[in-house]
Amino acid sequence: MGKFHGHAYPGLFLFCNGLYQAIVIFSDSLQSLCLPKKKGRWARLWKISYEGLLKIVAGSLLVVYVNICIEGGIILMDRELPPRFLYSKEWQHLTMFTLLILMGCVDVMSKNMLPQRCVVLEKGALVLSFYELLLLMVSHVKESSGIELQVHSLLILVVFLLLLVLTAELWAPEMFQLWMMETLLILVLGSWLIQAGFILYRPVSGYPWDDDDMNDLMFVTTFFCWHVMCDALCLFGIYGFSYFWHRCYYSSLKMMGSKEAPYHKSTPEPLYRLLQEIEQPDKEDQAPLLAKSSPRDKA
Amino acid sequence: MGKFHGHAYPGLFLFCNGLYQAIVIFSDSLQSLCLPKKKGRWARLWKISYEGLLKIVAGSLLVVYVNICIEGGIILMDRELPPRFLYSKEWQHLTMFTLLILMGCVDVMSKNMLPQRCVVLEKGALVLSFYELLLLMVSHVKESSGIELQVHSLLILVVFLLLLVLTAELWAPEMFQLWMMETLLILVLGSWLIQAGFILYRPVSGYPWDDDDMNDLMFVTTFFCWHVMCDALCLFGIYGFSYFWHRCYYSSLKMMGSKEAPYHKSTPEPLYRLLQEIEQPDKEDQAPLLAKSSPRDKA
Amino acid sequence: MGKFHGHAYPGLFLFCNGLYQAIVIFSDSLQSLCLPKKKGRWARLWKISYEGLLKIVAGSLLVVYVNICIEGGIILMDRELPPRFLYSKEWQHLTMFTLLILMGCVDVMSKNMLPQRCVVLEKGALVLSFYELLLLMVSHVKESSGIELQVHSLLILVVFLLLLVLTAELWAPEMFQLWMMETLLILVLGSWLIQAGFILYRPVSGYPWDDDDMNDLMFVTTFFCWHVMCDALCLFGIYGFSYFWHRCYYSSLKMMGSKEAPYHKSTPEPLYRLLQEIEQPDKEDQAPLLAKSSPRDKA
Amino acid sequence: MGKFHGHAYPGLFLFCNGLYQAIVIFSDSLQSLCLPKKKGRWARLWKISYEGLLKIVAGSLLVVYVNICIEGGIILMDRELPPRFLYSKEWQHLTMFTLLILMGCVDVMSKNMLPQRCVVLEKGALVLSFYELLLLMVSHVKESSGIELQVHSLLILVVFLLLLVLTAELWAPEMFQLWMMETLLILVLGSWLIQAGFILYRPVSGYPWDDDDMNDLMFVTTFFCWHVMCDALCLFGIYGFSYFWHRCYYSSLKMMGSKEAPYHKSTPEPLYRLLQEIEQPDKEDQAPLLAKSSPRDKA
Repeated sequence: MGKFHGHAYPGLFLFCNGLYQAIVIFSDSLQSLCLPKKKGRWARLWKISYEGLLKIVAGSLLVVYVNICIEGGIILMDRELPPRFLYSKEWQHLTMFTLLILMGCVDVMSKNMLPQRCVVLEKGALVLSFYELLLLMVSHVKESSGIELQVHSLLILVVFLLLLVLTAELWAPEMFQLWMMETLLILVLGSWLIQAGFILYRPVSGYPWDDDDMNDLMFVTTFFCWHVMCDALCLFGIYGFSYFWHRCYYSSLKMMGSKEAPYHKSTPEPLYRLLQEIEQPDKEDQAPLLAKSSPRDKA
Repeated sequence: MGKFHGHAYPGLFLFCNGLYQAIVIFSDSLQSLCLPKKKGRWARLWKISYEGLLKIVAGSLLVVYVNICIEGGIILMDRELPPRFLYSKEWQHLTMFTLLILMGCVDVMSKNMLPQRCVVLEKGALVLSFYELLLLMVSHVKESSGIELQVHSLLILVVFLLLLVLTAELWAPEMFQLWMMETLLILVLGSWLIQAGFILYRPVSGYPWDDDDMNDLMFVTTFFCWHVMCDALCLFGIYGFSYFWHRCYYSSLKMMGSKEAPYHKSTPEPLYRLLQEIEQPDKEDQAPLLAKSSPRDKA
Repeated sequence: MGKFHGHAYPGLFLFCNGLYQAIVIFSDSLQSLCLPKKKGRWARLWKISYEGLLKIVAGSLLVVYVNICIEGGIILMDRELPPRFLYSKEWQHLTMFTLLILMGCVDVMSKNMLPQRCVVLEKGALVLSFYELLLLMVSHVKESSGIELQVHSLLILVVFLLLLVLTAELWAPEMFQLWMMETLLILVLGSWLIQAGFILYRPVSGYPWDDDDMNDLMFVTTFFCWHVMCDALCLFGIYGFSYFWHRCYYSSLKMMGSKEAPYHKSTPEPLYRLLQEIEQPDKEDQAPLLAKSSPRDKA
Repeated sequence: MGKFHGHAYPGLFLFCNGLYQAIVIFSDSLQSLCLPKKKGRWARLWKISYEGLLKIVAGSLLVVYVNICIEGGIILMDRELPPRFLYSKEWQHLTMFTLLILMGCVDVMSKNMLPQRCVVLEKGALVLSFYELLLLMVSHVKESSGIELQVHSLLILVVFLLLLVLTAELWAPEMFQLWMMETLLILVLGSWLIQAGFILYRPVSGYPWDDDDMNDLMFVTTFFCWHVMCDALCLFGIYGFSYFWHRCYYSSLKMMGSKEAPYHKSTPEPLYRLLQEIEQPDKEDQAPLLAKSSPRDKA
């Protein structure tokens, strides 16, 4: 598998996935507020898990690609004596892509085949996949050093944090803070994979980075920090844009008819409820704190 | 103790234990739903902790076996000057088997002797045992390297994760996600122990693995990932089979008489309640979300 | 950037920040109890995030200072062939200061621009900053050894613990124990940074510490422990002072008029509620324990 | 400070502390059940924190002892040029003992001086002390190797786990599982410290352990596991003894008068409630499960 493409394309896939997820989260919270009833045929179409199908297609294409790249197809051992294992890196890639396909299958099955969507099953498959991904990456990195080690250590760190977040999501699949963390980590993983491809195989200056130069090693971390910063700003931008768009949309809805607005208010999706809770901790400045046995009940 | 048998047999024991546990969990949830009243003599028999007895018997046999393997019985020190410790590995094995016996005793006592079953006590004994197992394995591994180290590191990783899950179970002994994790980790531990026996002492190709070949080292991790994948699929298969079996059984019950079904519904075991909760997060698509204060609103 | 100033001034800034935070926490809890209604223009002024503005100003000054220190301004690469990265340490400092500015911007925006304060956003920015700070410090430390490594390892440990506490605060932003931990860790971070400046660049005895002397290495840890102890006592002193001041103030209020006191009691801020809860666990000695179902029993 | 005494005496102190704590926990839960009203002068006497006073006295004696052991008293630096630090190990011991005194002061203050006991303050002081103890032990161990390193690594592991448990207790100071863990870890810490003194300075066989013998290194871990097992059995014995004593006492109370028994039942201390909750998960075998909206309410 091409070394530059092997980093840049999965990175691009992950980055787009992260962006898509960020947009879905916010648009979901908007849609649930403003358009709760227009879920007809289009919603049904939407519910066919495109993400799952995409994972299956992408995984299958990558499996085929790995097989094409090797002359005579991939084999596990040669026929000499003693027999040796062959293509260890390729087999690890194949394992990763198989995981991607399985994950896609679980997604499709849970969202379209089971009578009710089973979120824990999906999340469990995801956690298992990232757990194996972490193991494979650690064993991948064992013989590298210098710049390559530094670049991959940061990747492993991100995957490890993502694993922690996903494991926590097994218990709280709809918690806003975890979703944000997950999305940010996926964005960082994607953008850093792309950058890793450039650093290791196509340095922008045209000259390879120097493994023995401490300056170069330190700049790997510095660049990584800039990635984290940019991805966080990107996420923040999407959030801000969707927030203001929602405010405009919502206020225009209010203008049109006052009957619908209160109705919508009573059926917010879990996420939006969370968003509102987050934004309210300072309301106690304007009004006396509402205790649990709120005055409304007494009235 | 034979090196191949010393890995393969405990592995087989653990794997069967894991399978048995998976089947019990699901059949328990089914039984509780469909046959809540047929707990007569058979249930009482079932309640005599076979697992505990099995642990005591297995542990005792292994203690005897270790003593037979060593000529003249196991001793702690020789009589020379300065006196040296002997059979350090065997003493560690003995410690493990003693732990197994103690664990069995605690199981039997808690389930059959105490007036009420004390789950925390059982779990506590289990956690302590795995904690000591981890310590012993880490000290076991200290002088190994290459393939042996790699194989055992993965074992230690599984035991460590199992320890974390079991510790969490001290607080939530009936949580579905933790049970699934525990069962999966026990399955992986068992199947990987069997594989470890083959890799280290009876390689399938007939030639020993090469410690200095990076390919071989990487394939250890790859094989481990395949184990995790297969065990997860195995668990998923058991779950799916028991789910569909339960659906058939339940619907046939519904046909036979409509009086019993609603009754059964009101006494689900904790696990099954969890299963149902997990499967319902998407129901809000069909019906408007029922807020907590909903009954009051209707009144 | 001057090596002594580079440690001592940020340390002083952090230490003052910690003291300020400790005082704010306690005075907040007092104010909320005794002066809930006097929030007029002064409160509005107070609410303009001085902390955020201070962060922006401090960060900007430091960015300018770094640029002044380097002749010809800071550049990323030289123009030779092959081009090399320059000023890696300075770029890492710049990254840290940029983070400080961004954190200040988020603070100001959340507290003064958004319609409602968004605590999770502020905490999220803080967590991200400390996460990157940790990465930068780890890469900073890579080529140091001896005393320098020991001093910085302890710093990294504090930053890591702070990161954990801040991450936990994402879910429980108003929990008393977390606030105390955070404040203590910030105090330790600040005072230890100042001490680090003295140990590494201006030893009090006039002679540099010896990297090869085990005694010196052990005293680094000993001094750190004394710092933790002193900072904890300092925090405890502020708490005690504010507690007794509050008691005096409160009792004098009670003397003046008995009407206001019960009113104030009904609108405590979350923090003060926690303080009271913490102080009550032993009340069960004086009165029989009130179970949750107590009101019903009396009825 | 004598090397054997320096390990064995603190170990003995800790072990007795652990035993005392185990007895107090269980006798507390018994007392609260059977003798809720006999808290007169004796209870007041009991409440003067003997533990705190003991810590202060023990700490002070140890500080004096360290000062006596060194001719001319302990000093920080010599007067030569360049000045060198002296007595680094002794200063670390002094720091530990000062922590013990401070902890005792906090205990006494919280239990006897403050108007209400502040459990969080006590626990916080304990956590800080163990945190510094951990740091000091890690720096203590840096220049040791072989048997000494192995023995101390296990000590550090116990202190680390204890630190985690104590930190968790900041949030749940009365949780039964945490108390058991804490008591067990204190017992292990104490008994292992005594054993460490024997292994390192007074080996039972009369011959020192061999650092280069793998057998000896492995037996250190094996012995540690036996300690954990014995301490757990010891704790279990205390629990069992106190449980059966309580049953006898309780049934004899029941015989004497049936009026008091139901009264006592309604005012259990938190710990005992937990014990009962732990023992009940299997009650659902005898009676149909009571859902939250229990039939009583409907009736």
